[in-house]
Amino acid sequence: MGLIVEVDTVDEDAAVLVPPPNFSMVEDCIFRSSFPTPSNFPFLQTLNLRSIIYLCPEPYPEENLEFLRSQNIRLFQFGIEGKTEASLPILRDSIMEALKVLIDVRNHPILIHCKRGKHRTGCLVGCLRKLQNWCLSSVFEEYQRFAGAKLRNGDLIFIDRFDIVSLKQCLYSIIYQYQGYGSKKRRLLYTDQNLQKHQLASF
Amino acid sequence: MGLIVEVDTVDEDAAVLVPPPNFSMVEDCIFRSSFPTPSNFPFLQTLNLRSIIYLCPEPYPEENLEFLRSQNIRLFQFGIEGKTEASLPILRDSIMEALKVLIDVRNHPILIHCKRGKHRTGCLVGCLRKLQNWCLSSVFEEYQRFAGAKLRNGDLIFIDRFDIVSLKQCLYSIIYQYQGYGSKKRRLLYTDQNLQKHQLASF
Repeated sequence: MGLIVEVDTVDEDAAVLVPPPNFSMVEDCIFRSSFPTPSNFPFLQTLNLRSIIYLCPEPYPEENLEFLRSQNIRLFQFGIEGKTEASLPILRDSIMEALKVLIDVRNHPILIHCKRGKHRTGCLVGCLRKLQNWCLSSVFEEYQRFAGAKLRNGDLIFIDRFDIVSLKQCLYSIIYQYQGYGSKKRRLLYTDQNLQKHQLASF
Repeated sequence: MGLIVEVDTVDEDAAVLVPPPNFSMVEDCIFRSSFPTPSNFPFLQTLNLRSIIYLCPEPYPEENLEFLRSQNIRLFQFGIEGKTEASLPILRDSIMEALKVLIDVRNHPILIHCKRGKHRTGCLVGCLRKLQNWCLSSVFEEYQRFAGAKLRNGDLIFIDRFDIVSLKQCLYSIIYQYQGYGSKKRRLLYTDQNLQKHQLASF
């Protein structure tokens, strides 16, 4: 836990920071936004990012790649078309793969973004909230806060139907794999009984 | 840094969590929301709050006070009337006092709330963002995301005009007071020159 204001602010002439539109903190070390441009790079530097999840099929611009290289940030790209309703199975698979990256603390701090930070990003954050046991109306309220007038019913249906059980199996396997069965962090363990019950997915 | 999903989710029957409307994370250990009701208490427990900043003049309900007592959460109340334009000097003083509490990490994790988490909470978060050197358009965008159609121009003018210099002096004095001039955390220190330059407020 540290002070929340960088020492740069001691300098009256410190550069003004410009977060990308629709920027927000989602959880400890998880952020969301629209597509960052070079004007946002000084702000992004303050997040000490280790990874970025990029949810569009278009190639990442060279100036953004250069920023990632200079900051040693790893890019995870999941190419989801802008019109989500067009390819539901692809969306489902992509969101599941993105979730595996998102909940793996080795990738934190991590920024999720698509183009406007509304629909694709909203779907991924919505599925994360289901995993965190948020009630659906709260998940939808958060989605809508970022989508604004551009709310898409198809996204809400997608989040609603997203398979929470296989999602949890995915989480359990990551806990098991990386936190270790013999770890002293007991809160991250589960018993043999539960292991059998859930039939861990192996990936 | 820990795993972002509570172990409760291992249990398929874990209770569904209901965040208060307009809930969001603002920064590490800083949260915002509308007025929490008993249905939100199980969710609030997961935040391990140490303090709450409450920005309305109305007395805190007994059931909320009971929850705070049971969780050992300290309540800081700053009574700001709902119609902000009515009493600008009071609003300014209250927001300044609330900021002093907000940026003091001894009070973290901390939740800010008013009634709907739009205007009074939005003003306090907006002033925090100015302190963090966010550009004004980004501060306004965040304010609007939570205010929605209920955006108040008076709030935006208030945030714009809020005295950032005295705000920073307030911060410096807290850094000086609690982090200690002789601390090894050099990033939180400033030189004698700066101390004199800013003429620390003593409070």
